[in-house]
Amino acid sequence: MSKHRIFSLPVRVYYQDTDAGGVVYHANYVNFMERARTEWLRTFGYSNAGMMKELGVMFVVRSIRLDYLRPAQLDDLLQVSALIKEVGRSRVTLTQTIARGEELLTEGEVHLVCVDVQTFKPVSVPEILRKQWD
Amino acid sequence: MSKHRIFSLPVRVYYQDTDAGGVVYHANYVNFMERARTEWLRTFGYSNAGMMKELGVMFVVRSIRLDYLRPAQLDDLLQVSALIKEVGRSRVTLTQTIARGEELLTEGEVHLVCVDVQTFKPVSVPEILRKQWD
Amino acid sequence: MSKHRIFSLPVRVYYQDTDAGGVVYHANYVNFMERARTEWLRTFGYSNAGMMKELGVMFVVRSIRLDYLRPAQLDDLLQVSALIKEVGRSRVTLTQTIARGEELLTEGEVHLVCVDVQTFKPVSVPEILRKQWD
Amino acid sequence: MSKHRIFSLPVRVYYQDTDAGGVVYHANYVNFMERARTEWLRTFGYSNAGMMKELGVMFVVRSIRLDYLRPAQLDDLLQVSALIKEVGRSRVTLTQTIARGEELLTEGEVHLVCVDVQTFKPVSVPEILRKQWD
Repeated sequence: MSKHRIFSLPVRVYYQDTDAGGVVYHANYVNFMERARTEWLRTFGYSNAGMMKELGVMFVVRSIRLDYLRPAQLDDLLQVSALIKEVGRSRVTLTQTIARGEELLTEGEVHLVCVDVQTFKPVSVPEILRKQWD
Repeated sequence: MSKHRIFSLPVRVYYQDTDAGGVVYHANYVNFMERARTEWLRTFGYSNAGMMKELGVMFVVRSIRLDYLRPAQLDDLLQVSALIKEVGRSRVTLTQTIARGEELLTEGEVHLVCVDVQTFKPVSVPEILRKQWD
Repeated sequence: MSKHRIFSLPVRVYYQDTDAGGVVYHANYVNFMERARTEWLRTFGYSNAGMMKELGVMFVVRSIRLDYLRPAQLDDLLQVSALIKEVGRSRVTLTQTIARGEELLTEGEVHLVCVDVQTFKPVSVPEILRKQWD
Repeated sequence: MSKHRIFSLPVRVYYQDTDAGGVVYHANYVNFMERARTEWLRTFGYSNAGMMKELGVMFVVRSIRLDYLRPAQLDDLLQVSALIKEVGRSRVTLTQTIARGEELLTEGEVHLVCVDVQTFKPVSVPEILRKQWD
């Protein structure tokens, strides 16, 4: 998969995702985005556990920014996207969106840092991923 | 779908589902089971919201029992099942399992009660569902 | 603290604990109970991490049973209890309740097993805990 | 309580808050911050439900930004703060931090919008709150 193609994961909204306001609880969009990032990573050949075992690294979230435009509701079928915005030495920036059909509900940016699984220190993004992302 | 056919939903395990013990956090199996029940209900023609709007009822959980046999791990692809065990006037009992391939990880029973969305009082399971479940 | 004294933890209900039904989402009572068990364990001298480091063991949930009697609501201040029912070689059974004032909302039983943190095999409950529980 | 005083809520880290990386799962800091905002609001005389009933309004999250500096771990006792940064007509901006003792772990900004509970349209922040915040 090219770094320029938008990856998208369908996510159904269940009771567990909603709150007493009748809509999806705001922190749960962050969960939806993590699911999409994990499946996005998988398109480049690595599961979370596989990357830890084979490459000795993991991506940790360094910062997030989310704009909530419209609320998602119970039973909605959402599309949660992930797209590379920028790749640094150890840092990867993704743009992520959550949409219901044509309607954009949430838009965000996530900064990941590639760290060593033992030391938790930042290390270079593995070449096997970098060459697919550049 | 016949009441005797086992419904099964594939569920991927993400970081959000795990805990510092390295396995899926025990309460999250309850979430997986709710997802499966929702999709199971959908096979009989009703979403949660649709059932509330069209039939004026909802199913609430009256009790659960879960046996944890083996832990699920990060990146596992689980099969979460739902099967009717018994249908009473307002009560529905489901057997639910969580498996990884041939390996049974969790087994449980969930008692639901059909309640009026306004009064929260128990009411009869709607005929349109009952006739599919008897 | 005597094994016969009921331990109780106050828990406030926030939006994050509720669902679109307007009440606490059923799996979240399981979370409340875990919080109470952790603080209950602390009254006997051990944090989760401390027990792993000092004693090389941890308690894992082997089974749960919960009866939902009345729903908890946004902003409720709940009392979540834990009380030893039975202590076996490696197994500990707790009775747990969730109440709002005098009103019992949820009642459950949790079976824990003491396991080695390396092998995940059942081991005897450490003497330093057992002597406080017998 | 003055708008200039930093409100702080102690939050214990339980298994339910952690992930297989051994630290607090990143979305759960968003939950911790919601708990602190709710208790902060309470110091000005309103619960979430009370504000809805008495004033007919609620605060919804319009955007969040979080920087993760250091990870929180199992059993940590965190201090989660909330402080008003700016109050507009219907908008309130809060600065929130999560610390472990003297150590800052997470820093963020949350934009809330005051909306009518019926129409979900933005409305002015109620005078009874505004006069405490200006």
